[in-house]
Amino acid sequence: MMNTLKDRRSIRRYTDRPVEHELLTRLLTEAERTQTMGNLQLYSVVLTTDAAEKAQLAPCHFNQPMVTQAPAVLTFCADFHRVTRWCRERQADPGYDNFLSFLNAATDALLYCQTFCTLAEEAGLGLCYLGTTLYTPLEIIRILQLPKLVMPVATITLGWPAENPPQTDRLPLTAILHEGTYHSPSAADIDRDYAAKEALPENQEFLRINQKATLAQIFTDLRYTRRDNEAMSAGLLHALREQGFLDATAGA
Amino acid sequence: MMNTLKDRRSIRRYTDRPVEHELLTRLLTEAERTQTMGNLQLYSVVLTTDAAEKAQLAPCHFNQPMVTQAPAVLTFCADFHRVTRWCRERQADPGYDNFLSFLNAATDALLYCQTFCTLAEEAGLGLCYLGTTLYTPLEIIRILQLPKLVMPVATITLGWPAENPPQTDRLPLTAILHEGTYHSPSAADIDRDYAAKEALPENQEFLRINQKATLAQIFTDLRYTRRDNEAMSAGLLHALREQGFLDATAGA
Repeated sequence: MMNTLKDRRSIRRYTDRPVEHELLTRLLTEAERTQTMGNLQLYSVVLTTDAAEKAQLAPCHFNQPMVTQAPAVLTFCADFHRVTRWCRERQADPGYDNFLSFLNAATDALLYCQTFCTLAEEAGLGLCYLGTTLYTPLEIIRILQLPKLVMPVATITLGWPAENPPQTDRLPLTAILHEGTYHSPSAADIDRDYAAKEALPENQEFLRINQKATLAQIFTDLRYTRRDNEAMSAGLLHALREQGFLDATAGA
Repeated sequence: MMNTLKDRRSIRRYTDRPVEHELLTRLLTEAERTQTMGNLQLYSVVLTTDAAEKAQLAPCHFNQPMVTQAPAVLTFCADFHRVTRWCRERQADPGYDNFLSFLNAATDALLYCQTFCTLAEEAGLGLCYLGTTLYTPLEIIRILQLPKLVMPVATITLGWPAENPPQTDRLPLTAILHEGTYHSPSAADIDRDYAAKEALPENQEFLRINQKATLAQIFTDLRYTRRDNEAMSAGLLHALREQGFLDATAGA
Protein backbone atom coordinates (compact mmCIF):
# COMPACT_ATOMS: atom_id res chain seq x y z
CA MET A 1 0.00 0.00 0.00
CA MET A 2 2.84 2.39 0.83
CA ASN A 3 4.03 2.38 -2.79
CA THR A 4 0.51 2.88 -4.15
CA LEU A 5 0.10 5.80 -1.78
CA LYS A 6 3.45 7.44 -2.56
CA ASP A 7 2.44 7.43 -6.20
CA ARG A 8 -1.16 8.50 -5.74
CA ARG A 9 -2.93 11.25 -7.67
CA SER A 10 -6.60 12.01 -8.13
CA ILE A 11 -7.90 10.55 -11.41
CA ARG A 12 -10.59 12.48 -13.30
CA ARG A 13 -10.60 10.61 -16.64
CA TYR A 14 -11.55 6.96 -16.97
CA THR A 15 -11.55 4.28 -19.68
CA ASP A 16 -14.82 2.78 -20.93
CA ARG A 17 -14.25 -0.37 -18.92
CA PRO A 18 -16.90 -0.67 -16.21
CA VAL A 19 -15.98 -1.30 -12.58
CA GLU A 20 -16.96 -4.95 -12.20
CA HIS A 21 -19.76 -5.31 -9.67
CA GLU A 22 -18.05 -8.24 -7.96
CA LEU A 23 -14.84 -6.23 -7.51
CA LEU A 24 -16.75 -3.24 -6.17
CA THR A 25 -18.73 -5.25 -3.63
CA ARG A 26 -15.56 -7.08 -2.54
CA LEU A 27 -13.76 -3.78 -1.90
CA LEU A 28 -16.76 -2.28 -0.10
CA THR A 29 -17.00 -5.40 2.07
CA GLU A 30 -13.29 -5.41 2.90
CA ALA A 31 -13.46 -1.73 3.85
CA GLU A 32 -16.03 -2.65 6.53
CA ARG A 33 -13.06 -3.68 8.72
CA THR A 34 -12.53 0.05 9.42
CA GLN A 35 -13.03 1.00 13.08
CA THR A 36 -16.56 2.22 13.79
CA MET A 37 -18.38 3.68 16.80
CA GLY A 38 -19.64 0.89 19.04
CA ASN A 39 -19.45 -1.36 15.98
CA LEU A 40 -22.65 0.28 14.72
CA GLN A 41 -21.29 1.09 11.21
CA LEU A 42 -23.03 4.43 10.96
CA TYR A 43 -22.72 4.74 7.19
CA SER A 44 -24.25 3.72 3.91
CA VAL A 45 -23.21 4.02 0.28
CA VAL A 46 -25.41 4.85 -2.68
CA LEU A 47 -23.97 3.52 -5.94
CA THR A 48 -24.87 5.33 -9.16
CA THR A 49 -23.96 3.69 -12.47
CA ASP A 50 -26.94 4.59 -14.66
CA ALA A 51 -26.16 7.38 -17.14
CA ALA A 52 -29.42 9.24 -16.51
CA GLU A 53 -28.92 9.09 -12.76
CA LYS A 54 -25.34 10.32 -13.05
CA ALA A 55 -26.60 13.21 -15.17
CA GLN A 56 -29.04 14.10 -12.39
CA LEU A 57 -26.22 14.24 -9.85
CA ALA A 58 -23.83 16.21 -12.06
CA PRO A 59 -25.22 19.71 -11.27
CA CYS A 60 -24.74 19.01 -7.53
CA HIS A 61 -21.04 18.72 -8.33
CA PHE A 62 -20.70 21.86 -10.49
CA ASN A 63 -21.12 19.66 -13.59
CA GLN A 64 -17.56 18.45 -13.29
CA PRO A 65 -17.23 16.05 -16.26
CA MET A 66 -16.00 13.09 -14.20
CA VAL A 67 -19.44 12.66 -12.64
CA THR A 68 -21.00 11.63 -15.94
CA GLN A 69 -17.83 10.13 -17.41
CA ALA A 70 -16.96 7.84 -14.47
CA PRO A 71 -18.48 4.34 -14.69
CA ALA A 72 -19.37 4.52 -10.98
CA VAL A 73 -20.28 7.33 -8.61
CA LEU A 74 -20.41 6.48 -4.91
CA THR A 75 -22.10 8.74 -2.40
CA PHE A 76 -21.02 7.98 1.18
CA CYS A 77 -23.60 8.93 3.79
CA ALA A 78 -23.62 9.42 7.53
CA ASP A 79 -26.48 7.09 8.46
CA PHE A 80 -28.36 6.78 11.74
CA HIS A 81 -31.54 5.79 9.91
CA ARG A 82 -30.70 2.10 9.75
CA VAL A 83 -29.75 1.89 13.44
CA THR A 84 -32.89 3.80 14.35
CA ARG A 85 -34.99 1.35 12.30
CA TRP A 86 -33.25 -1.52 14.09
CA CYS A 87 -34.02 0.04 17.48
CA ARG A 88 -37.69 0.51 16.62
CA GLU A 89 -37.93 -3.14 15.54
CA ARG A 90 -36.33 -4.18 18.84
CA GLN A 91 -38.36 -2.30 21.49
CA ALA A 92 -35.52 0.19 22.01
CA ASP A 93 -35.97 3.99 22.12
CA PRO A 94 -33.33 5.59 19.86
CA GLY A 95 -31.98 9.07 20.65
CA TYR A 96 -29.86 9.83 17.59
CA ASP A 97 -31.64 12.85 16.14
CA ASN A 98 -28.99 15.28 17.34
CA PHE A 99 -25.75 16.95 16.29
CA LEU A 100 -23.34 14.65 18.13
CA SER A 101 -24.92 11.69 16.39
CA PHE A 102 -24.47 13.39 13.03
CA LEU A 103 -20.75 13.94 13.67
CA ASN A 104 -20.33 10.38 14.96
CA ALA A 105 -21.96 9.03 11.81
CA ALA A 106 -20.06 11.42 9.53
CA THR A 107 -16.84 10.22 11.16
CA ASP A 108 -17.73 6.58 10.57
CA ALA A 109 -18.66 7.35 6.95
CA LEU A 110 -15.46 9.29 6.21
CA LEU A 111 -13.14 6.70 7.78
CA TYR A 112 -14.93 3.97 5.83
CA CYS A 113 -14.73 6.03 2.64
CA GLN A 114 -11.00 6.54 3.03
CA THR A 115 -10.32 2.84 3.61
CA PHE A 116 -12.36 2.09 0.51
CA CYS A 117 -10.34 4.64 -1.50
CA THR A 118 -7.07 3.06 -0.37
CA LEU A 119 -8.26 -0.43 -1.33
CA ALA A 120 -9.63 0.75 -4.67
CA GLU A 121 -6.36 2.47 -5.58
CA GLU A 122 -4.41 -0.60 -4.53
CA ALA A 123 -6.61 -2.62 -6.94
CA GLY A 124 -5.54 -0.26 -9.74
CA LEU A 125 -8.69 1.84 -9.87
CA GLY A 126 -8.55 5.64 -10.09
CA LEU A 127 -10.81 7.99 -8.22
CA CYS A 128 -11.57 11.58 -7.46
CA TYR A 129 -13.01 12.81 -4.16
CA LEU A 130 -15.72 15.46 -4.66
CA GLY A 131 -15.85 17.96 -1.81
CA THR A 132 -18.89 19.49 -3.53
CA THR A 133 -21.08 16.95 -1.68
CA LEU A 134 -21.42 19.48 1.15
CA TYR A 135 -22.40 22.35 -1.16
CA THR A 136 -25.97 21.43 -2.16
CA PRO A 137 -26.81 18.49 0.12
CA LEU A 138 -30.58 18.93 -0.17
CA GLU A 139 -30.44 18.29 -3.91
CA ILE A 140 -28.42 15.12 -3.40
CA ILE A 141 -30.82 14.05 -0.64
CA ARG A 142 -33.76 14.52 -3.03
CA ILE A 143 -32.14 12.69 -5.96
CA LEU A 144 -30.89 9.73 -3.91
CA GLN A 145 -34.08 9.68 -1.80
CA LEU A 146 -32.21 9.80 1.47
CA PRO A 147 -34.56 9.51 4.48
CA LYS A 148 -34.24 11.38 7.78
CA LEU A 149 -31.01 10.70 9.68
CA VAL A 150 -29.10 10.08 6.45
CA MET A 151 -26.77 12.85 5.24
CA PRO A 152 -24.40 12.69 2.27
CA VAL A 153 -20.83 13.56 3.32
CA ALA A 154 -18.55 12.39 0.49
CA THR A 155 -18.73 11.47 -3.17
CA ILE A 156 -16.19 9.43 -5.14
CA THR A 157 -16.04 9.08 -8.91
CA LEU A 158 -14.46 5.74 -9.72
CA GLY A 159 -13.11 3.94 -12.77
CA TRP A 160 -10.06 2.56 -14.53
CA PRO A 161 -7.56 5.40 -15.08
CA ALA A 162 -7.27 6.99 -18.52
CA GLU A 163 -4.78 9.64 -17.43
CA ASN A 164 -1.68 9.98 -15.31
CA PRO A 165 -1.56 13.60 -14.19
CA PRO A 166 1.43 15.11 -12.38
CA GLN A 167 1.42 14.64 -8.63
CA THR A 168 0.49 17.68 -6.56
CA ASP A 169 2.73 19.13 -3.84
CA ARG A 170 2.29 18.74 -0.10
CA LEU A 171 3.40 20.85 2.88
CA PRO A 172 6.39 19.76 4.96
CA LEU A 173 5.41 17.88 8.13
CA THR A 174 6.58 20.86 10.21
CA ALA A 175 3.34 22.57 9.14
CA ILE A 176 1.18 19.69 10.38
CA LEU A 177 2.78 18.19 13.48
CA HIS A 178 2.69 19.80 16.92
CA GLU A 179 4.45 18.17 19.84
CA GLY A 180 2.77 18.42 23.24
CA THR A 181 0.71 21.50 22.52
CA TYR A 182 -0.32 23.48 19.43
CA HIS A 183 2.13 26.17 18.35
CA SER A 184 0.60 28.84 16.20
CA PRO A 185 2.91 29.43 13.23
CA SER A 186 4.99 32.61 13.23
CA ALA A 187 5.45 34.66 10.07
CA ALA A 188 8.80 32.90 9.62
CA ASP A 189 7.13 29.48 10.00
CA ILE A 190 4.59 30.40 7.33
CA ASP A 191 7.36 31.53 4.99
CA ARG A 192 9.28 28.29 5.56
CA ASP A 193 6.27 25.96 5.13
CA TYR A 194 4.62 27.67 2.15
CA ALA A 195 7.75 28.73 0.19
CA ALA A 196 7.93 25.63 -2.03
CA LYS A 197 4.19 25.71 -2.83
CA GLU A 198 4.27 29.41 -3.68
CA ALA A 199 7.31 28.98 -5.92
CA LEU A 200 5.76 26.26 -8.12
CA PRO A 201 5.56 27.37 -11.78
CA GLU A 202 1.88 26.34 -12.03
CA ASN A 203 1.01 28.46 -9.02
CA GLN A 204 2.97 31.43 -10.39
CA GLU A 205 1.00 30.98 -13.60
CA PHE A 206 -2.31 31.07 -11.65
CA LEU A 207 -1.33 34.43 -10.22
CA ARG A 208 -0.52 35.82 -13.65
CA ILE A 209 -3.74 34.55 -15.28
CA ASN A 210 -5.92 35.79 -12.43
CA GLN A 211 -3.97 38.98 -11.83
CA LYS A 212 -3.50 38.26 -8.14
CA ALA A 213 -0.58 39.28 -5.95
CA THR A 214 -0.40 36.11 -3.82
CA LEU A 215 -1.45 32.47 -4.05
CA ALA A 216 -3.53 32.85 -0.88
CA GLN A 217 -5.68 35.41 -2.72
CA ILE A 218 -6.55 32.75 -5.32
CA PHE A 219 -8.24 30.85 -2.49
CA THR A 220 -9.86 33.76 -0.66
CA ASP A 221 -10.99 35.74 -3.72
CA LEU A 222 -11.78 32.99 -6.24
CA ARG A 223 -11.91 29.39 -5.07
CA TYR A 224 -13.32 29.48 -1.53
CA THR A 225 -14.77 32.91 -0.87
CA ARG A 226 -16.35 34.15 2.34
CA ARG A 227 -19.61 34.85 0.52
CA ASP A 228 -19.88 31.29 -0.85
CA ASN A 229 -18.77 29.70 2.43
CA GLU A 230 -21.34 31.63 4.43
CA ALA A 231 -24.19 30.88 2.01
CA MET A 232 -23.29 27.19 1.90
CA SER A 233 -22.90 27.03 5.69
CA ALA A 234 -26.51 28.18 6.02
CA GLY A 235 -27.58 25.56 3.45
CA LEU A 236 -25.69 22.85 5.26
CA LEU A 237 -27.25 23.68 8.64
CA HIS A 238 -30.65 23.78 6.94
CA ALA A 239 -30.04 20.31 5.46
CA LEU A 240 -28.98 18.96 8.86
CA ARG A 241 -32.23 20.26 10.35
CA GLU A 242 -34.27 18.78 7.48
CA GLN A 243 -32.58 15.41 7.99
CA GLY A 244 -33.37 15.52 11.70
CA PHE A 245 -29.82 15.96 13.03
CA LEU A 246 -30.23 19.48 14.39
CA ASP A 247 -33.34 20.70 16.12
CA ALA A 248 -34.54 24.23 15.60
CA THR A 249 -33.30 25.39 19.00
CA ALA A 250 -29.95 23.59 19.01
CA GLY A 251 -27.96 26.38 17.45
CA ALA A 252 -29.46 29.16 19.55
CA MET B 1 -2.64 -3.83 2.82
CA MET B 2 -5.65 -6.03 2.09
CA ASN B 3 -4.30 -8.77 4.35
CA THR B 4 -3.46 -6.36 7.16
CA LEU B 5 -6.97 -5.00 6.92
CA LYS B 6 -8.72 -8.37 6.83
CA ASP B 7 -6.93 -9.21 10.04
CA ARG B 8 -7.39 -5.88 11.79
CA ARG B 9 -8.63 -5.36 15.33
CA SER B 10 -8.39 -2.37 17.63
CA ILE B 11 -5.44 -2.70 20.02
CA ARG B 12 -5.79 -1.32 23.55
CA ARG B 13 -2.69 -2.79 25.22
CA TYR B 14 0.86 -1.97 24.17
CA THR B 15 4.38 -3.14 24.97
CA ASP B 16 6.86 -0.79 26.64
CA ARG B 17 8.66 -0.22 23.36
CA PRO B 18 8.24 3.42 22.29
CA VAL B 19 7.05 4.37 18.82
CA GLU B 20 10.28 5.55 17.24
CA HIS B 21 10.03 9.22 16.34
CA GLU B 22 11.56 8.65 12.91
CA LEU B 23 8.95 5.97 12.12
CA LEU B 24 6.11 8.15 13.33
CA THR B 25 7.17 11.17 11.29
CA ARG B 26 7.69 8.98 8.23
CA LEU B 27 4.16 7.56 8.50
CA LEU B 28 2.63 10.99 9.14
CA THR B 29 4.50 12.35 6.11
CA GLU B 30 3.43 9.47 3.85
CA ALA B 31 -0.19 9.93 4.94
CA GLU B 32 -0.06 13.48 3.57
CA ARG B 33 -0.68 11.96 0.11
CA THR B 34 -4.37 11.66 1.11
CA GLN B 35 -6.70 13.78 -1.02
CA THR B 36 -7.39 17.18 0.53
CA MET B 37 -9.65 20.13 -0.28
CA GLY B 38 -7.94 22.43 -2.78
CA ASN B 39 -4.66 20.91 -1.59
CA LEU B 40 -4.94 23.06 1.54
CA GLN B 41 -4.38 20.19 4.01
CA LEU B 42 -6.88 21.46 6.57
CA TYR B 43 -5.58 19.38 9.46
CA SER B 44 -2.96 19.22 12.15
CA VAL B 45 -1.85 16.58 14.62
CA VAL B 46 -0.86 17.09 18.24
CA LEU B 47 1.45 14.35 19.48
CA THR B 48 1.43 13.54 23.20
CA THR B 49 4.14 11.23 24.56
CA ASP B 50 4.87 12.79 27.95
CA ALA B 51 3.33 10.80 30.85
CA ALA B 52 2.03 13.89 32.66
CA GLU B 53 0.47 15.22 29.48
CA LYS B 54 -1.19 11.89 28.73
CA ALA B 55 -2.58 11.86 32.28
CA GLN B 56 -4.10 15.29 31.64
CA LEU B 57 -5.87 14.01 28.52
CA ALA B 58 -7.11 10.78 30.11
CA PRO B 59 -10.27 12.21 31.76
CA CYS B 60 -11.37 13.59 28.37
CA HIS B 61 -11.47 9.97 27.24
CA PHE B 62 -13.36 8.50 30.22
CA ASN B 63 -9.99 7.50 31.76
CA GLN B 64 -9.74 4.57 29.40
CA PRO B 65 -6.40 2.98 30.40
CA MET B 66 -4.91 2.98 26.88
CA VAL B 67 -4.56 6.78 26.98
CA THR B 68 -1.92 6.65 29.70
CA GLN B 69 -0.56 3.24 28.73
CA ALA B 70 0.01 3.93 25.02
CA PRO B 71 3.46 5.31 24.19
CA ALA B 72 1.89 7.85 21.83
CA VAL B 73 -1.45 9.65 21.74
CA LEU B 74 -2.28 11.56 18.56
CA THR B 75 -5.06 14.14 18.43
CA PHE B 76 -6.14 14.90 14.86
CA CYS B 77 -7.62 18.37 14.44
CA ALA B 78 -9.69 20.13 11.81
CA ASP B 79 -7.48 23.18 11.22
CA PHE B 80 -8.28 26.40 9.38
CA HIS B 81 -6.02 28.38 11.70
CA ARG B 82 -2.84 27.73 9.72
CA VAL B 83 -4.45 28.63 6.37
CA THR B 84 -5.94 31.75 7.95
CA ARG B 85 -2.48 32.74 9.27
CA TRP B 86 -1.08 32.16 5.78
CA CYS B 87 -3.78 34.38 4.25
CA ARG B 88 -3.11 37.17 6.74
CA GLU B 89 0.61 37.04 5.93
CA ARG B 90 -0.21 37.25 2.22
CA GLN B 91 -2.64 40.19 1.97
CA ALA B 92 -5.58 37.82 1.51
CA ASP B 93 -8.89 38.12 3.40
CA PRO B 94 -9.83 34.65 4.75
CA GLY B 95 -13.49 33.70 5.21
CA TYR B 96 -13.24 30.36 7.00
CA ASP B 97 -14.92 31.11 10.32
CA ASN B 98 -18.08 29.24 9.39
CA PHE B 99 -19.71 25.83 9.58
CA LEU B 100 -18.95 24.67 6.03
CA SER B 101 -15.28 25.36 6.65
CA PHE B 102 -15.40 23.30 9.84
CA LEU B 103 -16.87 20.32 8.00
CA ASN B 104 -14.38 20.71 5.14
CA ALA B 105 -11.51 20.71 7.62
CA ALA B 106 -12.98 17.85 9.67
CA THR B 107 -13.25 15.84 6.46
CA ASP B 108 -9.62 16.51 5.58
CA ALA B 109 -8.55 15.58 9.12
CA LEU B 110 -10.53 12.33 9.21
CA LEU B 111 -9.39 11.14 5.79
CA TYR B 112 -5.79 11.91 6.76
CA CYS B 113 -6.26 10.15 10.10
CA GLN B 114 -7.58 7.01 8.42
CA THR B 115 -4.71 6.85 5.93
CA PHE B 116 -2.31 7.22 8.84
CA CYS B 117 -4.06 4.37 10.70
CA THR B 118 -3.81 2.10 7.67
CA LEU B 119 -0.08 2.85 7.27
CA ALA B 120 0.59 2.42 10.98
CA GLU B 121 -1.15 -0.96 11.07
CA GLU B 122 0.71 -2.03 7.96
CA ALA B 123 3.95 -1.17 9.81
CA GLY B 124 2.90 -3.53 12.61
CA LEU B 125 1.71 -0.90 15.08
CA GLY B 126 -1.55 -1.31 16.97
CA LEU B 127 -4.02 1.47 17.63
CA CYS B 128 -7.35 2.35 19.09
CA TYR B 129 -9.60 5.12 17.76
CA LEU B 130 -11.20 7.16 20.56
CA GLY B 131 -14.60 8.51 19.62
CA THR B 132 -14.64 10.31 22.98
CA THR B 133 -12.79 13.22 21.32
CA LEU B 134 -16.17 14.76 20.50
CA TYR B 135 -17.53 14.40 24.04
CA THR B 136 -15.60 17.10 25.92
CA PRO B 137 -13.84 19.04 23.16
CA LEU B 138 -13.38 22.22 25.22
CA GLU B 139 -11.22 20.34 27.73
CA ILE B 140 -9.03 18.95 24.95
CA ILE B 141 -8.84 22.41 23.39
CA ARG B 142 -7.64 23.84 26.69
CA ILE B 143 -5.07 21.11 27.38
CA LEU B 144 -3.60 21.10 23.87
CA GLN B 145 -3.87 24.91 23.62
CA LEU B 146 -5.75 24.82 20.35
CA PRO B 147 -6.35 28.32 18.94
CA LYS B 148 -9.50 29.51 17.15
CA LEU B 149 -10.35 27.59 13.97
CA VAL B 150 -8.75 24.42 15.32
CA MET B 151 -11.10 21.68 16.55
CA PRO B 152 -10.13 18.19 17.73
CA VAL B 153 -12.01 15.51 15.78
CA ALA B 154 -10.19 12.21 16.39
CA THR B 155 -7.75 10.69 18.86
CA ILE B 156 -5.59 7.62 18.29
CA THR B 157 -3.66 5.71 20.95
CA LEU B 158 -0.67 4.08 19.30
CA GLY B 159 1.97 1.52 20.22
CA TRP B 160 3.36 -1.94 19.58
CA PRO B 161 0.63 -4.54 20.25
CA ALA B 162 0.66 -6.47 23.53
CA GLU B 163 -2.62 -8.27 22.86
CA ASN B 164 -4.44 -10.01 20.03
CA PRO B 165 -8.13 -9.75 20.83
CA PRO B 166 -10.81 -11.58 18.85
CA GLN B 167 -12.03 -9.78 15.77
CA THR B 168 -15.41 -8.10 16.03
CA ASP B 169 -18.30 -8.85 13.66
CA ARG B 170 -19.52 -6.69 10.79
CA LEU B 171 -22.87 -6.32 9.02
CA PRO B 172 -23.37 -7.94 5.61
CA LEU B 173 -22.91 -5.50 2.72
CA THR B 174 -26.67 -5.66 2.03
CA ALA B 175 -27.09 -3.41 5.07
CA ILE B 176 -24.68 -0.78 3.70
CA LEU B 177 -25.01 -0.66 -0.08
CA HIS B 178 -27.91 0.97 -1.94
CA GLU B 179 -28.08 0.89 -5.72
CA GLY B 180 -29.46 3.95 -7.49
CA THR B 181 -31.47 5.29 -4.56
CA TYR B 182 -31.68 4.64 -0.81
CA HIS B 183 -34.03 1.87 0.20
CA SER B 184 -35.16 2.07 3.79
CA PRO B 185 -34.84 -1.40 5.35
CA SER B 186 -38.02 -3.36 5.95
CA ALA B 187 -38.55 -5.36 9.14
CA ALA B 188 -37.43 -8.43 7.19
CA ASP B 189 -34.27 -6.63 6.02
CA ILE B 190 -33.45 -5.70 9.61
CA ASP B 191 -33.94 -9.29 10.73
CA ARG B 192 -31.70 -10.55 7.91
CA ASP B 193 -28.89 -8.01 8.45
CA TYR B 194 -28.79 -8.05 12.28
CA ALA B 195 -29.46 -11.77 12.91
CA ALA B 196 -25.81 -12.85 13.06
CA LYS B 197 -24.82 -9.95 15.34
CA GLU B 198 -27.72 -10.59 17.70
CA ALA B 199 -26.95 -14.30 17.90
CA LEU B 200 -23.31 -13.85 18.97
CA PRO B 201 -22.66 -15.45 22.39
CA GLU B 202 -20.93 -12.29 23.69
CA ASN B 203 -23.95 -10.19 22.77
CA GLN B 204 -26.35 -12.69 24.36
CA GLU B 205 -24.18 -12.44 27.46
CA PHE B 206 -24.46 -8.60 27.44
CA LEU B 207 -28.25 -8.94 27.53
CA ARG B 208 -28.12 -11.33 30.44
CA ILE B 209 -25.68 -9.22 32.50
CA ASN B 210 -27.60 -6.01 31.84
CA GLN B 211 -31.05 -7.58 32.03
CA LYS B 212 -32.09 -6.20 28.67
CA ALA B 213 -34.52 -7.80 26.23
CA THR B 214 -32.68 -6.81 23.01
CA LEU B 215 -29.18 -5.84 21.93
CA ALA B 216 -30.49 -2.53 20.58
CA GLN B 217 -31.54 -1.61 24.15
CA ILE B 218 -27.89 -1.97 25.24
CA PHE B 219 -27.13 0.94 22.91
CA THR B 220 -30.17 3.12 23.60
CA ASP B 221 -30.38 2.58 27.37
CA LEU B 222 -26.71 2.19 28.35
CA ARG B 223 -24.04 3.01 25.81
CA TYR B 224 -25.38 5.92 23.76
CA THR B 225 -28.40 7.37 25.49
CA ARG B 226 -30.58 10.24 24.31
CA ARG B 227 -29.79 12.21 27.46
CA ASP B 228 -26.00 11.95 26.94
CA ASN B 229 -26.24 12.59 23.21
CA GLU B 230 -28.31 15.71 23.67
CA ALA B 231 -26.07 17.09 26.42
CA MET B 232 -22.94 16.42 24.38
CA SER B 233 -24.52 17.87 21.22
CA ALA B 234 -24.99 21.15 23.08
CA GLY B 235 -21.36 20.98 24.28
CA LEU B 236 -20.12 20.30 20.78
CA LEU B 237 -22.03 23.22 19.26
CA HIS B 238 -20.74 25.42 22.09
CA ALA B 239 -17.16 24.33 21.33
CA LEU B 240 -17.64 25.07 17.62
CA ARG B 241 -18.82 28.57 18.50
CA GLU B 242 -15.88 29.08 20.88
CA GLN B 243 -13.45 27.98 18.17
CA GLY B 244 -15.03 30.41 15.72
CA PHE B 245 -16.67 27.91 13.36
CA LEU B 246 -20.28 28.76 14.15
CA ASP B 247 -21.52 32.24 14.74
CA ALA B 248 -24.16 32.91 17.34
CA THR B 249 -26.90 33.37 14.75
CA ALA B 250 -25.99 30.49 12.44
CA GLY B 251 -28.12 27.88 14.15
CA ALA B 252 -31.20 30.03 14.55
